[in-house]
Amino acid sequence: MRVVLKPGKDKLLRRGYPWVFANQIHRVEGRPRTGDVVEIAAADGTLYGLGFYHERSQIAVRFLTPDPEATIDAAFFRQRLERALALRETAFGDSTHYRLVFSESDGLPGTIIDRYGEVLTWTCLCYGMEQRRDLILDLLEELLQPRAIVERNDNSLREKDGLPQQRGILRGRYDGPVEIVEDGVRFRVDVLEGLKTGFFLDQRLHRPVVARLARDRRVLDVFSADGGFGLMAAARGAAHVHLLDISEPAMQRARENARLNGLDLSRLTFDVANALDRLGELVAQGATYDLIVLDPPAFAKSKRHLDDARRAYQRINISALRLLPPGGLLATASCSQALDEDEFLKIIHYSARRVGCGLRLLYRGTQPPDHPVLEAMPETHYLKFFLFQKMADEVPPVRQ
Amino acid sequence: MRVVLKPGKDKLLRRGYPWVFANQIHRVEGRPRTGDVVEIAAADGTLYGLGFYHERSQIAVRFLTPDPEATIDAAFFRQRLERALALRETAFGDSTHYRLVFSESDGLPGTIIDRYGEVLTWTCLCYGMEQRRDLILDLLEELLQPRAIVERNDNSLREKDGLPQQRGILRGRYDGPVEIVEDGVRFRVDVLEGLKTGFFLDQRLHRPVVARLARDRRVLDVFSADGGFGLMAAARGAAHVHLLDISEPAMQRARENARLNGLDLSRLTFDVANALDRLGELVAQGATYDLIVLDPPAFAKSKRHLDDARRAYQRINISALRLLPPGGLLATASCSQALDEDEFLKIIHYSARRVGCGLRLLYRGTQPPDHPVLEAMPETHYLKFFLFQKMADEVPPVRQ
Repeated sequence: MRVVLKPGKDKLLRRGYPWVFANQIHRVEGRPRTGDVVEIAAADGTLYGLGFYHERSQIAVRFLTPDPEATIDAAFFRQRLERALALRETAFGDSTHYRLVFSESDGLPGTIIDRYGEVLTWTCLCYGMEQRRDLILDLLEELLQPRAIVERNDNSLREKDGLPQQRGILRGRYDGPVEIVEDGVRFRVDVLEGLKTGFFLDQRLHRPVVARLARDRRVLDVFSADGGFGLMAAARGAAHVHLLDISEPAMQRARENARLNGLDLSRLTFDVANALDRLGELVAQGATYDLIVLDPPAFAKSKRHLDDARRAYQRINISALRLLPPGGLLATASCSQALDEDEFLKIIHYSARRVGCGLRLLYRGTQPPDHPVLEAMPETHYLKFFLFQKMADEVPPVRQ
Repeated sequence: MRVVLKPGKDKLLRRGYPWVFANQIHRVEGRPRTGDVVEIAAADGTLYGLGFYHERSQIAVRFLTPDPEATIDAAFFRQRLERALALRETAFGDSTHYRLVFSESDGLPGTIIDRYGEVLTWTCLCYGMEQRRDLILDLLEELLQPRAIVERNDNSLREKDGLPQQRGILRGRYDGPVEIVEDGVRFRVDVLEGLKTGFFLDQRLHRPVVARLARDRRVLDVFSADGGFGLMAAARGAAHVHLLDISEPAMQRARENARLNGLDLSRLTFDVANALDRLGELVAQGATYDLIVLDPPAFAKSKRHLDDARRAYQRINISALRLLPPGGLLATASCSQALDEDEFLKIIHYSARRVGCGLRLLYRGTQPPDHPVLEAMPETHYLKFFLFQKMADEVPPVRQ
């Protein structure tokens, strides 16, 4: 079975891009069904390798291997999983919580597998991979002997591949939150009920950077979720931490995590509220903080939402800058894949001009090594993270 | 004394840019001399603050403060130095080696002060600051009680401000290299005879990232200088480290640093050679490494040298990618301020296409917090650092 591209439509593939779109296809030979492995061929017959076919998705073929003779079987997937594991073991040493598989970046299309010690999660956006789920789960049990594998397929993107949204326990026994330790701080992660797969693994390198700067500072952690940034800041000696999130269950988990670490609850505020509204109120009250973390959910779910998203990012960044005195620190992130880094930076600059302050950059982050960015596939880059300091009188007064 | 800008020529200033160029000036009032403090005014009389004047430099005024009433005296500089110190103490805790002052980013124009424990260095590219050198050195002695302050003004950029190139001991006694410890690895830093001010402080956050990935790997450290990357990799269990640098004195210091840390010399190669030539020879011999560090000097000293620099960056990156098997790691840096990050990335992508391999990004760095980037002044951003992994068969075969 084979998919033949239109002439000139292999430009992306030739750069290493692993998707073939439906409108790039000239003809389909041999009647493949959704989930089947097909050969990918240029108009002149050059073979690009094998991929998973989908009859109705915009992403018609997801690349698997350049070897047209390869068999997509247990040995194939075992090698991919072993490589993925080797990278994480090298990058994180003894620590066993990480994104074990980051879809295309690990050569396993549409598949996200997170590891929290003995508990794994399964998220799959690709029909061909979902068809082979049991094979992959068998391999995961063989490789890692997990106590449980939990399905977190409550993701609307599943519908694009005609897959139902669902979550539950796929293998073993899951009897509630798993404890992980990051930089000496303990977190209980509920992989079944928590946000995403229970923890924001992708901010791993940024939490200690922020926390190290938090000593004796008054910290505001906006969109605090289970308390990752804020509680680590508290553990590192922040004078006070104001956690702000709209989710009551998430705040409850943050409170439990605070107790788990024996943190002084009198130095913590657990504030369940709409972040945009509360930020406005705090500005109106003339509140000030020394360090503010803005780690919002993806405001731009797709390119269609970009305008609204820009306004929302502006609003929170302007408010945050107003709440900081000169010398104050702003850690500001965006996980909207549709908003690229330059655009996000422009929003920050615009916000600073609106507030009339200069900024200097102290740290810039992106995804950690367990979320590798495929250079040929900009879609694999989504996380932007900047730590700015509001300037005092070292630079000319910024005016609009 | 006052500098009045031409109409419309205050756009950069209004964004927080701290330089006024000679061709932006409409008239100069009150006959200031080079090094004097002048008021900066827009065509309509709006005052932007004070700056140091230079009669002949392209950079006619370097901004100091928005307060036109300010006195540029010991109290002014003490506050700037105290703020600079506070940032470093917050960012680096107990560690006392860092760039204490990073010129415009710290509101001290053209002035670079490095700290290696009890020894400080003085580098100054601004006439007005150089005029006040003794005042600043007095303040540094008051603040930090250094054992010595060493001048490292062997910098050709000094000539733009009409300042002579020189180095030597300005204060106290300097009796040879200072020892610093980074991530448990000891380095002897010769602030008087070493490259730059004796150590590459700006790669501080990147050395441990690379070293952590070096265990059991065969490492090639190209442009190794005093051995920062390579020796830290060796200390973290690299199977073998090949240090390559053209400077015999630098290699001698690397050898001493290796001994100082009790490293197994049989697992180290100290190779004094031209890096571009040697890389070509290694490719011709079919040599392979598991992890290669490319940390060259600034190939592009200015925009005029960009074409040659691009070719040189391509050449070393292509060679390095050829020396890596699939799965191998490439840490590649550029400290050329004239070459921006996007352009540097394009060079890496081009190199990968030439070699016919896919890449995934595991880590991206820039300057550490003691080299803050002024958002209004792109000139303060110079360091690019990427850690890529060469892909195996997870992506389509890359073709030119």
